[in-house]
Amino acid sequence: MNFLLVYAHNEPKSFTASLHNAAQSILTQQGHQVVTSDLFGVGFHPVAERYDFTTLSGEHYNYMNEQEVAAKHDLAYSPDIIEEIQKVKTADVVLFFFPLWWNAPPAMLKGWFDRVLTKGTAWDGNHLFSTGLLRGKAAGVVVSVGDPENFYRPDGLHKATVQQMLYPLLHGTLAFCGFNVLEPFVAYGLTAANDFGIQEQLRDCSVRLSNIESNPRFIYKF
Amino acid sequence: MNFLLVYAHNEPKSFTASLHNAAQSILTQQGHQVVTSDLFGVGFHPVAERYDFTTLSGEHYNYMNEQEVAAKHDLAYSPDIIEEIQKVKTADVVLFFFPLWWNAPPAMLKGWFDRVLTKGTAWDGNHLFSTGLLRGKAAGVVVSVGDPENFYRPDGLHKATVQQMLYPLLHGTLAFCGFNVLEPFVAYGLTAANDFGIQEQLRDCSVRLSNIESNPRFIYKF
Repeated sequence: MNFLLVYAHNEPKSFTASLHNAAQSILTQQGHQVVTSDLFGVGFHPVAERYDFTTLSGEHYNYMNEQEVAAKHDLAYSPDIIEEIQKVKTADVVLFFFPLWWNAPPAMLKGWFDRVLTKGTAWDGNHLFSTGLLRGKAAGVVVSVGDPENFYRPDGLHKATVQQMLYPLLHGTLAFCGFNVLEPFVAYGLTAANDFGIQEQLRDCSVRLSNIESNPRFIYKF
Repeated sequence: MNFLLVYAHNEPKSFTASLHNAAQSILTQQGHQVVTSDLFGVGFHPVAERYDFTTLSGEHYNYMNEQEVAAKHDLAYSPDIIEEIQKVKTADVVLFFFPLWWNAPPAMLKGWFDRVLTKGTAWDGNHLFSTGLLRGKAAGVVVSVGDPENFYRPDGLHKATVQQMLYPLLHGTLAFCGFNVLEPFVAYGLTAANDFGIQEQLRDCSVRLSNIESNPRFIYKF
């Protein structure tokens, strides 16, 4: 299968980097084609603006409308967006590696969603959720969390699970575009983790990723 | 009172811009001091990285740890972060104006949270939620949503409310730092709105903002 790994961490020695590197090596060993978008590494620009389009409709400027117009004009997007769209089109599975910052993806990764999953290539008014333009592909997140798991319970500090925190991404973005969304892999408690805990989480993640086709689907329950 | 308006839209003719402009004018008329951070206007940089610090601890690099170290070294942050921290410190009320993109704030605004609400100035291990370092201040969001309200119901397209989508921000970020969080003002249905609907929503928002002290508090229920 073709894998796209979208990796968003600013530090090569981070645990998120280790998770990404482990995934890359396991999936490659299994004979998959693996491509990485290293967003911090390439200095990806996360801000959605007019320069994202090589043509403008001339109508009242609205970013989403311009996305749709550009899709119809042979992908009239800036080159960095076209490159990412092509990677997504080629992929059977897209995996996102990121740290949970403010209970959400870092701005760098949010900008990838804002700019790359365009109206006209990832979804449109007639193609969303089960009919989304990326249907048939799978998507999953591998997320590093500083706090321990018991902080992410109804009676814990955050009063919600990480899955609930990520609902805007898992359901509101990935499922919206038609992806089959996998149950997230969450590495908890990294702030206080020792080497042993870290190695164990790396191993758990590797096991999950080496059996990607039998991974559970994300089913959201409030 | 001192108001800080954090405004994040890439288009001056947008409805989000109209909401911000109306707020600025009403609050000023009422005799408040009003300062705006126009993130797209000033080209705010939303990516959290090493250049955010003028000193580095020399230990294993971790963004959050560096935030805390810099806070103890007379705010050893880059000048754009210091400027925003000072604005937040001066403010009694911080209001955020943004469009809902992928059921979350645009990357530009996410980057403001990532970089400005630092460990050491907005919160730390001993100061969060009711003891957060920004306690005593109020915060609210004014958010523009393309889809109609009935899409944001348990039985609607998104299967969750906008308040649930914004939980990582309202509870997981703003309440976490100690802010008294106001019930969000949500302008729905903008994709299909006509002039009348838009004027009505602008008026509703103005009424809410002109009675800010009697605004309901955000109480989250899953």
